[in-house]
Amino acid sequence: MNNSIPQLQALLREGTSQDVVAQVAHEHPADIAAAMEGMPPEEAWHALRQASLRRQAQVFGYLGHDFQTLLATVIPRTALADIVMEMKADDRADLYQELSEEQREALMPALAQAEREDIRQLASYEDGTAGAIMTSEYAALPLNLSATAALTMLRREAPDKETIYRAYVVDDARKLLGSVRLQDIITAPARAKICDIMETNTHAIRVDDDEEDAARRIARYDVIALPVVDAQDHLVGIITHDDALDVMEAEATEDFHRVATITDLDASVATASVPKLYRARISWLMLLVFGNIFSGAGIAHFEDTIAAHLALMFFLPILIASGGNAGSQSSTLMVRALATGDIGLSDWGRVFGRELAVAILLGLSMAVAIAMIGVFRGGREIALVIALSMVLIVIVGSLIGMMLPFILSRFNMDPATASTPLVTSIADATGVLIYFSIARSILTIA
Amino acid sequence: MNNSIPQLQALLREGTSQDVVAQVAHEHPADIAAAMEGMPPEEAWHALRQASLRRQAQVFGYLGHDFQTLLATVIPRTALADIVMEMKADDRADLYQELSEEQREALMPALAQAEREDIRQLASYEDGTAGAIMTSEYAALPLNLSATAALTMLRREAPDKETIYRAYVVDDARKLLGSVRLQDIITAPARAKICDIMETNTHAIRVDDDEEDAARRIARYDVIALPVVDAQDHLVGIITHDDALDVMEAEATEDFHRVATITDLDASVATASVPKLYRARISWLMLLVFGNIFSGAGIAHFEDTIAAHLALMFFLPILIASGGNAGSQSSTLMVRALATGDIGLSDWGRVFGRELAVAILLGLSMAVAIAMIGVFRGGREIALVIALSMVLIVIVGSLIGMMLPFILSRFNMDPATASTPLVTSIADATGVLIYFSIARSILTIA
Repeated sequence: MNNSIPQLQALLREGTSQDVVAQVAHEHPADIAAAMEGMPPEEAWHALRQASLRRQAQVFGYLGHDFQTLLATVIPRTALADIVMEMKADDRADLYQELSEEQREALMPALAQAEREDIRQLASYEDGTAGAIMTSEYAALPLNLSATAALTMLRREAPDKETIYRAYVVDDARKLLGSVRLQDIITAPARAKICDIMETNTHAIRVDDDEEDAARRIARYDVIALPVVDAQDHLVGIITHDDALDVMEAEATEDFHRVATITDLDASVATASVPKLYRARISWLMLLVFGNIFSGAGIAHFEDTIAAHLALMFFLPILIASGGNAGSQSSTLMVRALATGDIGLSDWGRVFGRELAVAILLGLSMAVAIAMIGVFRGGREIALVIALSMVLIVIVGSLIGMMLPFILSRFNMDPATASTPLVTSIADATGVLIYFSIARSILTIA
Repeated sequence: MNNSIPQLQALLREGTSQDVVAQVAHEHPADIAAAMEGMPPEEAWHALRQASLRRQAQVFGYLGHDFQTLLATVIPRTALADIVMEMKADDRADLYQELSEEQREALMPALAQAEREDIRQLASYEDGTAGAIMTSEYAALPLNLSATAALTMLRREAPDKETIYRAYVVDDARKLLGSVRLQDIITAPARAKICDIMETNTHAIRVDDDEEDAARRIARYDVIALPVVDAQDHLVGIITHDDALDVMEAEATEDFHRVATITDLDASVATASVPKLYRARISWLMLLVFGNIFSGAGIAHFEDTIAAHLALMFFLPILIASGGNAGSQSSTLMVRALATGDIGLSDWGRVFGRELAVAILLGLSMAVAIAMIGVFRGGREIALVIALSMVLIVIVGSLIGMMLPFILSRFNMDPATASTPLVTSIADATGVLIYFSIARSILTIA
């Protein structure tokens, strides 16, 4: 039924004009955009210009930011202005954010005043807030309109709205009163008024709230769009379900990266440059080098014990890795549960009790396993030392892993900063101390 | 405007009958459900039974599976049957999956035949497939209907459909031909037919495809719903945008857990029992104990070198942790990029080249840092040994971390099995070998 992206790309590059027009009109704009991203910008524009303006704007909206700005350099100024005016309000504001000062100055005078002001308004909200991802193209209805009149109005406004499937009911001052589904409008009795069929339990979000909260609310209430209000409860925009999906995906990726100590990699891994990747990774790696000095210092401190019982070294990697592994399990569970709202800060007491119980069970199981190896390699005394150490190290590692995300969250830091390597480093240093302390006390007494 | 969950809970438990009715009618069913989950099932049913049947079904659909089955034990059989018949088709099938054999046998005869068959049909698809999350309540239209007639039809069917905002165009054999937006139906000229206004680039998904592919397609094409077809291209259901959000969230959580070696924790961390948490964590922890024996064996192998230069031990944790940290950065980047489709299996060559470049830069930077500490603690020779080791360990660790997800993916295993602890274990063992090999060759020559 549909072409694959490489097939589509070949068609766009080598097809006759007619083929290109037909393809661009028929395929989904997301697929056209994906095919174009692999083409030189001049060729992409050559193919795109043959489509209708509406289609041009749709495809342009699906392009990645990097390719958008690149393409913007080869599209003539007036053609670009036409495309921008036809784009969705939120996509347009995003594009504006990405353009260079020069590109902005060339583009803006070519736009109509209404679009210019709308772009400036939407682009003024801070990145990461609900305002930054909302669109101003929502359908609003007055309270006393009849359902029939509302349908006529929505029908007329449909082409300029991001969605008409939910319309927002506002008073004269644009204060949000509720919302109404198109489905309820078209099935309402002829004489019904909007106020009779609207829902008043509409959960709005503030314009400066976190975009993640907005996405989570859309997921929770299964709505097509979420209204965004200012501090005075005036409706200023809506966030649609497709933006919620994008935000949740991006936030999950950010947390994945953070848990592995990769910072601020806003580019795709597929296209990020070597210096960008280097910068995203080096700072935490360096920091952790110094963190691990504590483990080294711990070992140095017990040099005499080690020299006397070199067999202890055989078990060192197993013991400290186990503490780190148990700790990173705990921290990952907490980081994710805090991010999804599955648990909150106030749950820490209950979670702590359960974590302790689980950690004791894990520690005992692993102590039994390692004690068996210990008897073989070092005798019964060594086995006792490493079994005791294992229990303690796993319990302490788990509790560190569990607590750290809560502590960070308590001090308004992202819990995902409790990265696996950070938890492992702390658990490692603690593990060294526990192991050799137990070893010294038991083995010297013997 | 709305009550918090604890406030709502207090109202449901202690309010007069009238208050309860008002609240259950006014608040969003998701909030009512959240409040009820903290109540004893008898009390929850006492509050819920006062609402309209429609509302009962909505609230019931938002309850977690565990609480649904618990509540089902206290609701009289006929009342439960009424609720189930009123529920959404997909929620209903999910509930059926969770019920015990006994509960099913009590419930099914009380349902109408159509619902019974629909439940059996939907429940027959394997967990994790598109079929398992789709609903059978979609709106279908014939090709030659006029737009006006289509609107009348959708208006009539609206209460029984999951969405009417996109209707699916099928032939007499229910073969999928395309889809049409309600927006285009209501704005179409009076005499337009469905075939004039429908879109034919509708991306359907097969009923046995992965649910994650379905969710990703909904995100890609920004659609409200995705049609699901059988092997003969017959329409069998749709998946809606809200289910896509749930799937993406669940899949991200699963990957988070897997990357931290937590397996199959299908319960929420907030409510999972101690034995369940123990089982989700112990197997990999045990496996890794044996994995880390290699590091221990490596150290044991170089016991002479260590005994001669005990200062080497100080740097061991720093060096092997650095390899593990760099490796877990690389593996996490790959695991996430493969999961989101940002990169594919065929990209490995390009990614490898870039990874090597980044790893060399990282290794050199960290070698400089550790060499400075090395000169202080062990003199110039030790500094040379650890600097050389650091460069090699970071490069090898990064490449292991990068390659492992690709290799697993190539053999049809989940790339997220390349968990941070697994990568770290392999990098640790390799790090021990590299470090002491370099140490032995340089320090004995000297």
